[in-house]
Amino acid sequence: MASSLRTLLPRSTRHVGASALRTSSRCHLPQQQKRLQSTTLAAPDALDPKLTSIDLSGLSITQTTTPKSITPNEELVFGRTFTDHMMSIEWTAQGGWLPPRITPYQNLSLDPATCVFHYGFEAFEGMKAYKDRQGNIRLFRPDKNMQRMNRSAARIALPTFDGKKMIELITQFVKMEERFIPSKRGYSLYIRPTIIGTQRTLGVGPPGSALVYVIASPVGPYYPTGFKAISLEATTYAVRAWPGGVGNSKLGANYAPCIVPQMQAAARGMHQNLWLFTEIDPATGEKEDFITEVGTMNLFVALQNKNGQKELLTAPLDGTILEGVTRDSVLALARERMVPQGWQVNERKCTMRELSEAAAEGRLLEVFGAGTAAVVSPIRNISYRDQMIDCGLSPGKEVGPVTLQMKDWIEGIQYGEEEHPWSITI
Amino acid sequence: MASSLRTLLPRSTRHVGASALRTSSRCHLPQQQKRLQSTTLAAPDALDPKLTSIDLSGLSITQTTTPKSITPNEELVFGRTFTDHMMSIEWTAQGGWLPPRITPYQNLSLDPATCVFHYGFEAFEGMKAYKDRQGNIRLFRPDKNMQRMNRSAARIALPTFDGKKMIELITQFVKMEERFIPSKRGYSLYIRPTIIGTQRTLGVGPPGSALVYVIASPVGPYYPTGFKAISLEATTYAVRAWPGGVGNSKLGANYAPCIVPQMQAAARGMHQNLWLFTEIDPATGEKEDFITEVGTMNLFVALQNKNGQKELLTAPLDGTILEGVTRDSVLALARERMVPQGWQVNERKCTMRELSEAAAEGRLLEVFGAGTAAVVSPIRNISYRDQMIDCGLSPGKEVGPVTLQMKDWIEGIQYGEEEHPWSITI
Repeated sequence: MASSLRTLLPRSTRHVGASALRTSSRCHLPQQQKRLQSTTLAAPDALDPKLTSIDLSGLSITQTTTPKSITPNEELVFGRTFTDHMMSIEWTAQGGWLPPRITPYQNLSLDPATCVFHYGFEAFEGMKAYKDRQGNIRLFRPDKNMQRMNRSAARIALPTFDGKKMIELITQFVKMEERFIPSKRGYSLYIRPTIIGTQRTLGVGPPGSALVYVIASPVGPYYPTGFKAISLEATTYAVRAWPGGVGNSKLGANYAPCIVPQMQAAARGMHQNLWLFTEIDPATGEKEDFITEVGTMNLFVALQNKNGQKELLTAPLDGTILEGVTRDSVLALARERMVPQGWQVNERKCTMRELSEAAAEGRLLEVFGAGTAAVVSPIRNISYRDQMIDCGLSPGKEVGPVTLQMKDWIEGIQYGEEEHPWSITI
Repeated sequence: MASSLRTLLPRSTRHVGASALRTSSRCHLPQQQKRLQSTTLAAPDALDPKLTSIDLSGLSITQTTTPKSITPNEELVFGRTFTDHMMSIEWTAQGGWLPPRITPYQNLSLDPATCVFHYGFEAFEGMKAYKDRQGNIRLFRPDKNMQRMNRSAARIALPTFDGKKMIELITQFVKMEERFIPSKRGYSLYIRPTIIGTQRTLGVGPPGSALVYVIASPVGPYYPTGFKAISLEATTYAVRAWPGGVGNSKLGANYAPCIVPQMQAAARGMHQNLWLFTEIDPATGEKEDFITEVGTMNLFVALQNKNGQKELLTAPLDGTILEGVTRDSVLALARERMVPQGWQVNERKCTMRELSEAAAEGRLLEVFGAGTAAVVSPIRNISYRDQMIDCGLSPGKEVGPVTLQMKDWIEGIQYGEEEHPWSITI
């Protein structure tokens, strides 16, 4: 690797004087040090107000002169067609966030040495705008997406921003694209905020410039003709994430390495792969395969304990799983609405051994993935080493009652059928 | 994450019919399965000859009409100025590699939905062209770079290619840029082959199209005024790589997450960070911090065992370290030339405890980083938890004899002063 000490630090001197950086490090180091103890790592200047604030009054809008036609609902493919415009904001280490712009959807023109192409300086979010029965446009928990995007950006030395201001910009952009939001339940406008490093040099260091852009794609329901339970292959030869790594951030870095294991699973007839993390189980002293997440979704397990207690569980936020917004929503709703019905709801580690035993003893009720695209995704079975674990769906059934209930609760809120603080009319 | 089953597989149907993919999976699966047992994962179609061959006869060359001026040697900064041209080859899942092109150095124009911006579909290489005293241009072990680039690409479902053909193209490109290759020893033309996924959809799956491009930047010596030993901070709060992860591939994914720990080290006055991997030491049953690599270089330790035996060691290729070309060269030369002098040369795990004990007992002789940029980089001390480990350099000395000897051997070969099969005149 050809980095150089001289290029490593500070953030490109083409953009920021060393003295400016030193000042900001000095101001923020104690806070940084404190954050180190928790889960978020960030560049020393990540919290400098001068570098994180966005001036909404500077927004410029250029309308397209060639509006696109609307793709019919039944022809929508996830992330393939986009709306007329995009929103973008450039950042430099010297000037912070420059005035935001809404422009016609257009190519990015970037020097081939730009750091996003070489060193993985990229993070993104996935969120949706929904149209309710009254014709209002709604966002679902956008504050959670902005918080996570800031955590992701900070982890790879990209700039952070004022999340509320970014939501205002996204709101303005989405309103401009209203005609692309399908009004049928299950349909929505998928919004993709993206941040990339744009420094045009090959030195390995914190980017001296960056770009946030937001594009949007009208999407249909994950299951247009009703649920279809999927089969998983538990991956035993590759590891997605580990404590102290970046598997809990929504970085480009976490996605490309997942494709081959997914293709391998598919080559053996399974729909997705299940990611495991193998370590000593403190309870037994034995090496165990712990469940983490499925493909690009978080995983939930509904089972009956040996004493008959019903439990909904998902892996804890230990750095090895993505901190999903849908995961958080499922947990919150389950705690509010299932606990009174006698359920235990737990974020805890679960081994494949426990899952397999529960299945063998008829105690495994349901397993489902949870993510922005599908909301929930029922799982029929899991191929694991020499076993095929049946996840409890009756033959002929494609979804269990917990999974179905959760989808109805969440979609009810997303589409404004149930008034809830998570759903924001814009 | 908003992926969809429909978009996961196969490689974009916009580029390749499902039947073509199925055929190629069927042909290659046994081989794939076998490869799974070793270190390389690849997409099922990674070895299809139709998709990996390059037709050199199709090369088109467009000369620049605005040749750049040559940057004076003393003003060269790593990876900041580039030559007049770039070489590029597009790939599609349908047609394989399209005719290669050498064009004026120019921006890439990419749709904002292109998968390289979102999912980390990017891998690269770092190699150099040297001018020898006779004015010949030389490459150093380019076959190793092409092998690794293919391994990296395959790991993230990007296409592979015929490495010999790619070297021929790089050769032709470098010859065109001859005037940019500084002729002084220590100077060279840094060559950056890059591969990116170019599919313009947000579905998470194997890219249906990709681009290889090669750019080049004249660079000066890492230590223009002689060696300067550096200080390291051992990072105990973040982990670079994990067995079963992708830390042994040269992916963009491995770089951005390393910047904040490097900035944190710098904020505490250290030049680089040292990556550790913590696990149970089978020899003792204790949890130990094992040395892996330094910043963006491999790490070598020269020490005297308790019985007086001199040993040069580096971490083994267990998936947690990059498979460095310089690392491999140092090992080969050490085995050939140091073993006869009574040294042991080992790829083995080494704990911080062992390093610290050796230092305390005066048995730690030298520590150095090894990589393409610096060849070798001497290390003065390592801050580790509450200790500062002195790496054996006498006060006032900036480099030890082993480190210096290794640099002289390798540079001697690179600049053609010693004829050696590693150095190829083009």
